[in-house]
Amino acid sequence: MYALYIANKNYSSWSLRPWVLLKALGIAFEERFVPFLEGETYEAFRKFSPTGLVPCLVDGDVTVWDSLAITEYVAEDHPNVWPADRTARAWARSATAEMHSGFFALRNICGMNVGLRVTLNEVSPALARDQARIEELWSEGLKRFGGPFLTGERFTAVDAFFCPVAFRIQTYGLDVGPEAKAYAERLLNLPAMQQWYAEGIAETLRDQPHDAEVPLVGTVTADYRAVAK
Amino acid sequence: MYALYIANKNYSSWSLRPWVLLKALGIAFEERFVPFLEGETYEAFRKFSPTGLVPCLVDGDVTVWDSLAITEYVAEDHPNVWPADRTARAWARSATAEMHSGFFALRNICGMNVGLRVTLNEVSPALARDQARIEELWSEGLKRFGGPFLTGERFTAVDAFFCPVAFRIQTYGLDVGPEAKAYAERLLNLPAMQQWYAEGIAETLRDQPHDAEVPLVGTVTADYRAVAK
Ligand SMILES: N[C@@H](CCC(=O)N[C@@H](CS)C(=O)NCC(=O)O)C(=O)O
Ligand SMILES: N[C@@H](CCC(=O)N[C@@H](CS)C(=O)NCC(=O)O)C(=O)O
Repeated sequence: MYALYIANKNYSSWSLRPWVLLKALGIAFEERFVPFLEGETYEAFRKFSPTGLVPCLVDGDVTVWDSLAITEYVAEDHPNVWPADRTARAWARSATAEMHSGFFALRNICGMNVGLRVTLNEVSPALARDQARIEELWSEGLKRFGGPFLTGERFTAVDAFFCPVAFRIQTYGLDVGPEAKAYAERLLNLPAMQQWYAEGIAETLRDQPHDAEVPLVGTVTADYRAVAK
Repeated sequence: MYALYIANKNYSSWSLRPWVLLKALGIAFEERFVPFLEGETYEAFRKFSPTGLVPCLVDGDVTVWDSLAITEYVAEDHPNVWPADRTARAWARSATAEMHSGFFALRNICGMNVGLRVTLNEVSPALARDQARIEELWSEGLKRFGGPFLTGERFTAVDAFFCPVAFRIQTYGLDVGPEAKAYAERLLNLPAMQQWYAEGIAETLRDQPHDAEVPLVGTVTADYRAVAK
């Protein structure tokens, strides 16, 4: 059975991608939780992951570090990871790779923090550009392949890669149009996403470096995270 | 036949990856050169690439933007893009994805500029970390799979993704150990890399934004690029 190392569900956007993919497709795996450790994360994560980053998948004597490599590794044995249609698959891989290597403003300014609700101080030009590209890309996929998911009827890896964006839209109240809003809500309503969210807000562990980013970009209007007793 | 959009060979590290992969594997493609345009690149590249970035592969009515998506797309029809062995393939995909989403200090400080030789002002801690990780990763691959390439006897996509690093080692005289130096030279000596280099230094088109980065990080000690007459 696969073992998947992931960090705190409240914060770890990269962990979410393969986790939600495996859950949504019903692929069994053992979850190995490793918390962020405020300055000592790298040393702790290096014990199992060569980059000191999560997610990291272990399958017998094979270690796969990086969310996209995990996706392709799992796809070799589970063809439903990607769309069945060749053109849809090329589109899905392009959009997934675009997320994997881009959208820096969105990722940096709107750090994932699923239990918070935040009003941003401003929408910088770089953030506005990322948001516009997300809307353009989602709209293209939904129209071209007929929805309700980005490449058609089934939830595949490309949807999984945009799941953190759905949480960000919710947390930061990003002002996206109705089509993007509806798609984000579709993702948020998936049983796998509801489970991740419930487990994320149930966490009482906090990571100071992640939380410290929030007041730099906006004001917290609600905090649904459980508090340690 | 595939059509591959690429930018200036002197500068475009992302264009190099799929180009050298296809060349080295003898996969036919039509090369479509689109120069960087100093502030108007985005608008010009958007005509064929949805992100405004190169490389971009067109195959009939399929457009594949992003180097890693192109790699996986081509691999569907050309299994020699990745190693044949499952474990080696998982390693190759992990290392490739690591390069696709990381090594920011190396990529930002040591911009690809194949015709120049530069002495860096300093090796920042972030650059030293990237360099150390490159050496660790290459060493692991070469030892584990027996060389001369990262996952064994054949040049595959993971080698292609590190080809720009070979040019950077040459341009910036990066002080890597003998094992990494020998591997970088092996890459530089490939016929496909020699062709890219020759065509890169033959270019007389310059891109001011790329060239302007160089004096910020070091001193040019040689310039082998052709000059427009
Ligand atoms: N390119 C990697 C990125 C992984 C990544 O950045 N993971 C973060 C957590 S979401 C991490 O492990 N950070 C470690 C730290 O904060 O020290 C992937 O796609 O898996
Ligand atoms: N993640 C993309 C990155 C592509 C990229 O950044 N390409 C650069 C050239 S190497 C580009 O097109 N830059 C456009 C510009 O400078 O405006 C990939 O892997 O293909």
